[in-house]
Amino acid sequence: MASNFGKTIQVSTFGASHGYAIGGIVEGLPCGHTIDIDELRAFLKRRAPGQNQLQTQRKEADTPEFLAGMVDGMLSGSPLAFMIRNTSQHSSDYNNLRDIPRPSHADFTARMRYGDKVDMRGGGHFSARLTAPLCVAGGIALQLLREKGIEIHGHLKQVGTIQDAPINMVHPDMKALASIATEPIAMVDPQKRNEVETLVMNLKKDGDSTGGIVEVVATGLPIGLGNPNFDGIENRLARVIFGVPAIKGVSFGGGFDMCAQLGSEVNDAFTMDGDKITTTTNNSGGIQGGITNGLPLVMQVGIKPTPSIYKEQHSVSLSQKEDTLLTIQGRHDPCVALRAVPVIEAVTALVILDFLGDIDHELR
Amino acid sequence: MASNFGKTIQVSTFGASHGYAIGGIVEGLPCGHTIDIDELRAFLKRRAPGQNQLQTQRKEADTPEFLAGMVDGMLSGSPLAFMIRNTSQHSSDYNNLRDIPRPSHADFTARMRYGDKVDMRGGGHFSARLTAPLCVAGGIALQLLREKGIEIHGHLKQVGTIQDAPINMVHPDMKALASIATEPIAMVDPQKRNEVETLVMNLKKDGDSTGGIVEVVATGLPIGLGNPNFDGIENRLARVIFGVPAIKGVSFGGGFDMCAQLGSEVNDAFTMDGDKITTTTNNSGGIQGGITNGLPLVMQVGIKPTPSIYKEQHSVSLSQKEDTLLTIQGRHDPCVALRAVPVIEAVTALVILDFLGDIDHELR
Amino acid sequence: MASNFGKTIQVSTFGASHGYAIGGIVEGLPCGHTIDIDELRAFLKRRAPGQNQLQTQRKEADTPEFLAGMVDGMLSGSPLAFMIRNTSQHSSDYNNLRDIPRPSHADFTARMRYGDKVDMRGGGHFSARLTAPLCVAGGIALQLLREKGIEIHGHLKQVGTIQDAPINMVHPDMKALASIATEPIAMVDPQKRNEVETLVMNLKKDGDSTGGIVEVVATGLPIGLGNPNFDGIENRLARVIFGVPAIKGVSFGGGFDMCAQLGSEVNDAFTMDGDKITTTTNNSGGIQGGITNGLPLVMQVGIKPTPSIYKEQHSVSLSQKEDTLLTIQGRHDPCVALRAVPVIEAVTALVILDFLGDIDHELR
Amino acid sequence: MASNFGKTIQVSTFGASHGYAIGGIVEGLPCGHTIDIDELRAFLKRRAPGQNQLQTQRKEADTPEFLAGMVDGMLSGSPLAFMIRNTSQHSSDYNNLRDIPRPSHADFTARMRYGDKVDMRGGGHFSARLTAPLCVAGGIALQLLREKGIEIHGHLKQVGTIQDAPINMVHPDMKALASIATEPIAMVDPQKRNEVETLVMNLKKDGDSTGGIVEVVATGLPIGLGNPNFDGIENRLARVIFGVPAIKGVSFGGGFDMCAQLGSEVNDAFTMDGDKITTTTNNSGGIQGGITNGLPLVMQVGIKPTPSIYKEQHSVSLSQKEDTLLTIQGRHDPCVALRAVPVIEAVTALVILDFLGDIDHELR
Repeated sequence: MASNFGKTIQVSTFGASHGYAIGGIVEGLPCGHTIDIDELRAFLKRRAPGQNQLQTQRKEADTPEFLAGMVDGMLSGSPLAFMIRNTSQHSSDYNNLRDIPRPSHADFTARMRYGDKVDMRGGGHFSARLTAPLCVAGGIALQLLREKGIEIHGHLKQVGTIQDAPINMVHPDMKALASIATEPIAMVDPQKRNEVETLVMNLKKDGDSTGGIVEVVATGLPIGLGNPNFDGIENRLARVIFGVPAIKGVSFGGGFDMCAQLGSEVNDAFTMDGDKITTTTNNSGGIQGGITNGLPLVMQVGIKPTPSIYKEQHSVSLSQKEDTLLTIQGRHDPCVALRAVPVIEAVTALVILDFLGDIDHELR
Repeated sequence: MASNFGKTIQVSTFGASHGYAIGGIVEGLPCGHTIDIDELRAFLKRRAPGQNQLQTQRKEADTPEFLAGMVDGMLSGSPLAFMIRNTSQHSSDYNNLRDIPRPSHADFTARMRYGDKVDMRGGGHFSARLTAPLCVAGGIALQLLREKGIEIHGHLKQVGTIQDAPINMVHPDMKALASIATEPIAMVDPQKRNEVETLVMNLKKDGDSTGGIVEVVATGLPIGLGNPNFDGIENRLARVIFGVPAIKGVSFGGGFDMCAQLGSEVNDAFTMDGDKITTTTNNSGGIQGGITNGLPLVMQVGIKPTPSIYKEQHSVSLSQKEDTLLTIQGRHDPCVALRAVPVIEAVTALVILDFLGDIDHELR
Repeated sequence: MASNFGKTIQVSTFGASHGYAIGGIVEGLPCGHTIDIDELRAFLKRRAPGQNQLQTQRKEADTPEFLAGMVDGMLSGSPLAFMIRNTSQHSSDYNNLRDIPRPSHADFTARMRYGDKVDMRGGGHFSARLTAPLCVAGGIALQLLREKGIEIHGHLKQVGTIQDAPINMVHPDMKALASIATEPIAMVDPQKRNEVETLVMNLKKDGDSTGGIVEVVATGLPIGLGNPNFDGIENRLARVIFGVPAIKGVSFGGGFDMCAQLGSEVNDAFTMDGDKITTTTNNSGGIQGGITNGLPLVMQVGIKPTPSIYKEQHSVSLSQKEDTLLTIQGRHDPCVALRAVPVIEAVTALVILDFLGDIDHELR
Repeated sequence: MASNFGKTIQVSTFGASHGYAIGGIVEGLPCGHTIDIDELRAFLKRRAPGQNQLQTQRKEADTPEFLAGMVDGMLSGSPLAFMIRNTSQHSSDYNNLRDIPRPSHADFTARMRYGDKVDMRGGGHFSARLTAPLCVAGGIALQLLREKGIEIHGHLKQVGTIQDAPINMVHPDMKALASIATEPIAMVDPQKRNEVETLVMNLKKDGDSTGGIVEVVATGLPIGLGNPNFDGIENRLARVIFGVPAIKGVSFGGGFDMCAQLGSEVNDAFTMDGDKITTTTNNSGGIQGGITNGLPLVMQVGIKPTPSIYKEQHSVSLSQKEDTLLTIQGRHDPCVALRAVPVIEAVTALVILDFLGDIDHELR
């Protein structure tokens, strides 16, 4: 079904941009673990809108209320259920959209899929707001993974045409990645951060938008996690990642660049590192045949420009069946990629925790 | 589980490179349809090895024997089961590989996942040979889809650094794509085909390899097919596509290129085409919010260079725990992307047929 | 996973007896349908505790609050999410149970499965209270099915050794069954209702309990619904039905009684009823080979005596590892079967709606 | 989908009564285990037809040929695939059945579900012959479980009205159950075996049939296996068991009998057995809240009389839409329950192995 994923750790999300609440259920979390709620809130804040000038000015506190599965901050063995009340809804912003679908939004396809009565205010169930429950679930998963020595951090590999300093895929500097988590622009290179800030402020002025690439790195994974064929690490990750709005590409390790290279250039040669078998390069992104090889997991996620722009656009009137012009109201991010870093970290954590449940008795 | 996928049309594959047979089961195919076996064989030949000088010289007839589910060429209502006998096994080529894992192959991770006794001759269950059953299932799916007006064709968008002429994503020339299906190099531009031929013959001489990008286009899809969030067209496609060996990236429509562009450049403006709502560009690749919008579905798949190269490579001895050198024997393709086009078409067909089962009573 | 089921209509439940709230998510409900909330409330009241002298005196209003998926009483296309706040918790009743597991309850197995920290107050996530969200989801399913001409009604076939008048399985009197829905004891025969009332009041006085058999009948099902082997009507129903606490047996049509009969006695002979093919008996319970045959679906569900009794029982101290005696406090039903009728109707409705989604485009 | 089940150990079956072959795929079996093929053959013989006078005289050798996943008798890490060739087909026996559906068979419902072209000779994909692949998979599961100290044995609790001696559900005599496995009538009480033999020979003479109850017992299960709600031991077992033809009821422990009893009679009191927590009775059948409690798992399966009888029966002509008479040809068992014991053991083994995969790293 559309709104859930996971085999041993199963996540369901619910809600729409303009309903009473959004939220989710997570089943399979280990009983008895205490969750650091402050840390979770800090994590959610990284995704939350309205934090700085680069983002939409829509403010949502994004405070999860736990309905079940948690007693005094401790996971209690039953499915964890939570909701986040919607507080900042300007439904009137969407009035003309009932008839005029926004380009590169799901307004039109949702109408064709669900019929005229589907509630698509603010993007409805397709809204990027649905990434908030993913971050609640994923923020908890990140805490549980850290207890097992697994760290996950992301950065903006690219915004528009501006590229961050490359990550060392064999020995990534996880501290550096951790330290940029709270930056408005999660790039390692401060000079590039400035360039992106200028770019985004200009886009905001122009009423335009741009895309970006989020790259995420996971270290400390056990070797031999995953499966061949259709249930490997890449398969499950890609399946879930494409559930995050605006994503149009997913790649691992050397990714699409490898297509133009030679086998002798990109094959990851094995070598001993003391007693440990490792590879001298990591173009495989830590995965061979769907299974972890002990090197860092590296994934790139391509995010298209925010489709909500303020420039006048061509569209059609569904009722009149004629061409028309559309100007979008509301409060939107010039570059959603900026706020997507914690979302990709969260989803990666959930999928890894799900795989870990295959081999970790405690997580069954 | 690892070896199956699908919700309404469910595919399971079995076999290993060097066992008695490979094969599969397909459940959910509509009862009473007659399959054109000659057409299926011609389709399988596009993937089969040993067809020309650009490929491995391993010859496998790849003739499917139907064990159940087919009576006199007609689908009989029970799961379709078939096998392809393995005929051209040189197990001795793999003797030294039991101890020395091949770089960028699954030899090492399979050992870590399944233990020492896993049968990894020729790549075992991770072998690209497992794409043959996918092509049997997918070749049948392609026939069923064509009856419903859905066409799927692919081409080599890129081999090494050589790029084919771009596809018009709004009005793709499906006849041109169909006509190159039997070319050894499935590019539209004949000049580029020559360049790739030279490249691949040189790589063969050098004992090296390269990668490529397969782009696939599907036309005739009903509007409104798919789902939001985690069960959209992109989600299911990506999940299955990453089950094909050597694939390290999947993107749709404008793909990763869009990350560097502006919303005002890449938003797909709606417009009326007579009575029909369409868009003037198709950077969305025919999908919005996981759901088809009536434009052609366009997907790019990034395939890494064949990891089997004949140059000497660095590796380790698993038993001695020390660095060593490895020279791979056997018969391998300098560029597996060349034979991957029908595989990606097949998988795309299976996933689309699976979605079609959601709305097409006959396919339940 | 443990807390969800369904393929086209997917239900997840959450909550524990003594947490903040219980609730659920239902995905796949058709967009645009208006739900009769008053009717839903009346349905929930049939399951709710504290309605009469025959039941536990624990009062729970069981009012669902819809968090998402419903706008002004209309299903809006996104997953329906709801919660029911827990209001009548006497946690102190369960203090001694942390160490002394109640016989024939899940206290002990939950501890062994989830560890010491699992929250088992009131039965935790294993509590029969979790049938309230099932009734919310199922009450809605019943309304949707009725629009399609499908009626589902149940009765108490047996309580203790007292048996209700038998149902005509070929031509069941659905009006009679509907009319007893609001009876405290859902038996067709008023004389038997009196007998059961006396029995239950005596059990209450004695601090003892008894079991019963709920029989449910569904009419108006399309012919040809279901699947062979492991995904037939009986398979899915049984899987979900055993998720309702206290159920130890499920049978269909003639059920276990047929084991002692002859084929010539129980085979359902086909006959024409005008233009329609029907059978003269219905020992198959409307299902052959997992697929509906147009006759009424008939299922029996065996419910054990409420394990919570007030008589002193033998148990053990988990901490002391020694035998001990236990007297259960709290407020419990002498016969949970009495309140189980709407639950079984609800679950049956959800499973049938799920199957209907396979063939009904609108319900995909 | 219809023809597969399992989460960690996934089983798919294929084939029809009168096709080229039947068979299956089992994924998730542990790599490196050697299977005792002779023992497997002996197990399959218990189910195979034509073994004695009480059964159908249709002889099928039921020899599995392993297509993949096994090298020299050892599980090799890839999915285990096998086929059994169909050898004894008398298709002509079924000629008149194309138009006249057999009472209480799936002929009619299969036609309504799959259309006129479905191959229903011999019951098609609904045939009890499909239990042979289940026995191949389950026979292997039984061997793997025995290595882990888990034994599963069944007996005929009842045939017609003749009941075997009751099993002690707390301390079952597993040796006695094991010793009757090769008896034509798997009852513990030899006197009852004689009575059943007489009954069945008389039914054979009369061209009639009867039903029976198979009871299966599993010992040595780890405590805490299973899940609450919809994914407990009972849920998964029932779901799969109803996939075996002719089954109309499933119950556990005290089963339906408990419905007429008192809580004070049937509650399973805990007591210490040395250091071990156990219960003095086992009406729960070893399961509380879907989870094993360390007592033997006890399940009853109700099997209806073989619907194929030789007496003239009433049916209809599908083409003429009129009542007609039908006399069934072919070779059928007067009581399929007799051959069902190993099938129920096999299915039980597969489901338990599937659950074990949740907690047993080796079985992931």
